[in-house]
Amino acid sequence: MLDPGRIMQRCDALARHSELPGGLTRVFLSREARAATDLVLGWMREAGMEAKLDAIGNAQARYEGARAGLPCLMMGSHLDTVRDAGKYDGMLGVITAIECVQALNAAGKRLPFAIEIVGFGDEEGVRFGTTLLGSRAVAGIFDQGTLHAKDASGKSMREALVEFGLDPNRISALARKKQDVVAYAELHIEQGPVLEAEGLAVGVVTAINGFSRLRATLRGVAGHAGTVPMKLRRDALTAAAECVLAVERIAKGHPDVVGTVGRIEVKPGAINVIPGEVGFTVDVRAPQDELRTRSVASIRAEIESVCKKRDVRGEIETLQEFGSTACSPWLMDQMENAVKRQGLPVRRLPSGAGHDGMALRAITDICMLFVRCKGGISHSPLESITEADAAAGAKVLFDFIEHFRLPA
Amino acid sequence: MLDPGRIMQRCDALARHSELPGGLTRVFLSREARAATDLVLGWMREAGMEAKLDAIGNAQARYEGARAGLPCLMMGSHLDTVRDAGKYDGMLGVITAIECVQALNAAGKRLPFAIEIVGFGDEEGVRFGTTLLGSRAVAGIFDQGTLHAKDASGKSMREALVEFGLDPNRISALARKKQDVVAYAELHIEQGPVLEAEGLAVGVVTAINGFSRLRATLRGVAGHAGTVPMKLRRDALTAAAECVLAVERIAKGHPDVVGTVGRIEVKPGAINVIPGEVGFTVDVRAPQDELRTRSVASIRAEIESVCKKRDVRGEIETLQEFGSTACSPWLMDQMENAVKRQGLPVRRLPSGAGHDGMALRAITDICMLFVRCKGGISHSPLESITEADAAAGAKVLFDFIEHFRLPA
Repeated sequence: MLDPGRIMQRCDALARHSELPGGLTRVFLSREARAATDLVLGWMREAGMEAKLDAIGNAQARYEGARAGLPCLMMGSHLDTVRDAGKYDGMLGVITAIECVQALNAAGKRLPFAIEIVGFGDEEGVRFGTTLLGSRAVAGIFDQGTLHAKDASGKSMREALVEFGLDPNRISALARKKQDVVAYAELHIEQGPVLEAEGLAVGVVTAINGFSRLRATLRGVAGHAGTVPMKLRRDALTAAAECVLAVERIAKGHPDVVGTVGRIEVKPGAINVIPGEVGFTVDVRAPQDELRTRSVASIRAEIESVCKKRDVRGEIETLQEFGSTACSPWLMDQMENAVKRQGLPVRRLPSGAGHDGMALRAITDICMLFVRCKGGISHSPLESITEADAAAGAKVLFDFIEHFRLPA
Repeated sequence: MLDPGRIMQRCDALARHSELPGGLTRVFLSREARAATDLVLGWMREAGMEAKLDAIGNAQARYEGARAGLPCLMMGSHLDTVRDAGKYDGMLGVITAIECVQALNAAGKRLPFAIEIVGFGDEEGVRFGTTLLGSRAVAGIFDQGTLHAKDASGKSMREALVEFGLDPNRISALARKKQDVVAYAELHIEQGPVLEAEGLAVGVVTAINGFSRLRATLRGVAGHAGTVPMKLRRDALTAAAECVLAVERIAKGHPDVVGTVGRIEVKPGAINVIPGEVGFTVDVRAPQDELRTRSVASIRAEIESVCKKRDVRGEIETLQEFGSTACSPWLMDQMENAVKRQGLPVRRLPSGAGHDGMALRAITDICMLFVRCKGGISHSPLESITEADAAAGAKVLFDFIEHFRLPA
C-alpha cells in the first residue's frame, strides 16, 4: 500500500539534514549529505532492496525481478540541494520510487524486470560548479578532469571524496552497460507554474531544456566614490547592470527562453569605492538548441557592446552547455497511460529545469513525471506540494511500474 | 631640511603593513594597524615629539612651542586604509607633517604655538561601517553607541579596542578643548583629477563635500532559473540593476554630484537560482547640502518606482549623512600665501572625498592642502604621486607652519 503521509514525512526528515539550521542547504559530500544518504539507504533496505553507497556518493539500490540478474528499470533523482533550498526538489523522486518498491515488496510482487533506485549525490553542482556528477558516473560520462575542481574552501573533489570515505579510482567502474538498463524514469516536482495554472496534479515531460552557462568578468577602474567625476568613471558595476538588464530583455524576446543572472560579485566591494571589477553568471535555457544558441550569441554581443561603450574590459567564459534531451515516445506513452488509468487528465510539457535524465540519456531511454508545486516556486524555502499531489504522483508512478513493458 | 625621499620611503614602509600580501588593506585595530602605528610613533619621537597611542588607537604627538603648554596647531591624517588601497591616502599627510616638525626640530626652532600631529586610527570606516572614529574622538563627537557596532566576524568595536590593549572608557577623555587647538591643517592627496588636468602640484581646499550613504534591500521571489517564465519573475537583481543605473543617471544630471553603488550582494547567489534578495549601498556627494539632499530624494523615489513597477519590496535605510564642511578663509589665505611664496600657482578647489577635518571642525577651524595624484586615482593600488609633488606639498606645508599666525 502506498503511503502518501510517509512520503511527506520522509521529505521532512531529509530536510532536517542541512548545513544551516532553519533552512535547507545540503551540498555534495558534506557531513549532512552523509546523514541524508544513510537515511535513504535505510529506507531502501526497509523496502526490500539491496542498497549501498557507491564510489561517487550515490545511494544505489536494487529490487530483483522474477529472477535474479534481469535488466532493470532505473528510477531516482538527487539528494543534494541548492543553497536555501526547498525539500521536494530531488528528494520527492527518490522517496516516491522507494515507496513504490516498498508497496511491491509488501505485496510479494516480482516483475519481469529488476528495479533500481538511485539517490544521486550531486545534481545541482553547488559545491564544485559542475552539475549531474552522480548520474554522469552511472551513465559512464563522468569527466575525470572534474576531480580537480575545487570548492570555495579550496578543497578538490578528489580530496572531498576521500574524506567522505570513497575511492575516486572506482568511479569509472560505476558506468552501467546499456543492456542492463531498460529505461530511466524520474518523478520530480515541476518547479514551474504550468500544472498549477491548469489545475493538474501531474504532467508527462516531453523533453528537458538545454542550458548554457556563462561567466562574465568586467574590468573597469576602481576609484574614490567622492572624487572621480561621473564622466571620467569606468565603473564595472554600472556596466554589469546594463548587462543584467540585457539578459532579461533578450530572454523576454521569446516566450520559451529564460535567462538569469544568479550571481554577481563586486571588487573591491566597499561603500565608498567605485567598483573596479565585477563578475557575474548567466544561465540561458530553451527547448530548442538553436534558439538557445541564438539567445546566447545575442547576450554575448550585448555584453561586448556595453563593455565597448563604457570602456570596460569584458571577458566571457562558457562554463557549461547541455543540449536539450528528449524523453522517449514509448516511455511517454506508457506514462500517459498510467495517468489515464488513474483517472487524471493528460498533459505533456517540457522541463525548464535540468535533471539527472540528461546524463542517463547516454545509456538508456528516459521519461519523467512532473508533480505540481505551489506557485511554481522551487530552489526556495517556499517550495511546497500537497500530500494529495504526492499521492497522485506515487499512484501514477506505481501504475507505470506495474504495467511497464519493454518496447516491442 | 625637508627630505622628500624619506617621505616617499616612509609611505612605502607603511604600505608593507597589510593584511594582504601583494596589496594594501589595513583596517582599524588590526594587527597590521598596530605595526603601522608603532612605526609612526617611532618617527614622531625621532622628530623630537612626545608621542603616544591614545584610547581610540590614534598615534598622537606634540612638539612644544616657545614655552610649554601653548595652544597647538594640529596636523595629521589617517593611518587606516580601504580594501586594496593605495599607499598615500592618509599616510602622506601624517608623514609630511612629521617631516616638517623634524625639520623644525633639527633647526632647533620653536614657534609661538605648539604643534600636534595625529595619525588617526580610523577614517575610512571599513571595519565597522562608521567613518572618522579617530577624529571624532579627538573632536569630542565620538558616538558611544558605535562601540556596539560589529565587524564582519561579529566582534564589537568595544571588544576590538580591548583586544588592541585600549580602554574604551577613556575615549571620552580624548576630547580636546577649543582653546587648546588653534586650527587643524591637513595635507592629503587630491584623490581626483583636477590638479593633474591643470598641471598643478598642489591646491588649496575650499570645502569638504557632504555625503549621504544609503543601504537598499530589494526583496523579490527566488525561483528556479530554468522553470519560471520571464513574465512571472520578481527578480530582485534585475530590479537592483535598474536602480544602479538610476543612481548613475541622477548623479550625471549635475556636474558637481557623484553617486556610486559600491557594494551589491545577491541571495541566494547561485548560478541557477533567480535572485530573491539583493542589498546594495549608495554613496552620494555634492558640495552644496541642498543639491545632495535633492539628489538623494530623486534616487530614493526612483528606487521606489522601480520596486513598484517590478512588484519587489524595497527598503531604504540612511546609513550616514554628513553636511559639507567649509575651510576657514583666514586659514585658506595663509595656505595660499605659502603656495605663492613657494613660487607655485594658486588653485582653490573643493574636496570630493571626506576627511578627518569634517570631525575636527566641531572644535576648531580647518584647512587642507591637496597634492596632485596620478590619473586622479585613489582607493586603488594604482594610486600614485611623484616625489617632486611630495616635495612641493611638504615645502608649502612647512612654509605655512613657519608663517602661521593666529587670526587678528
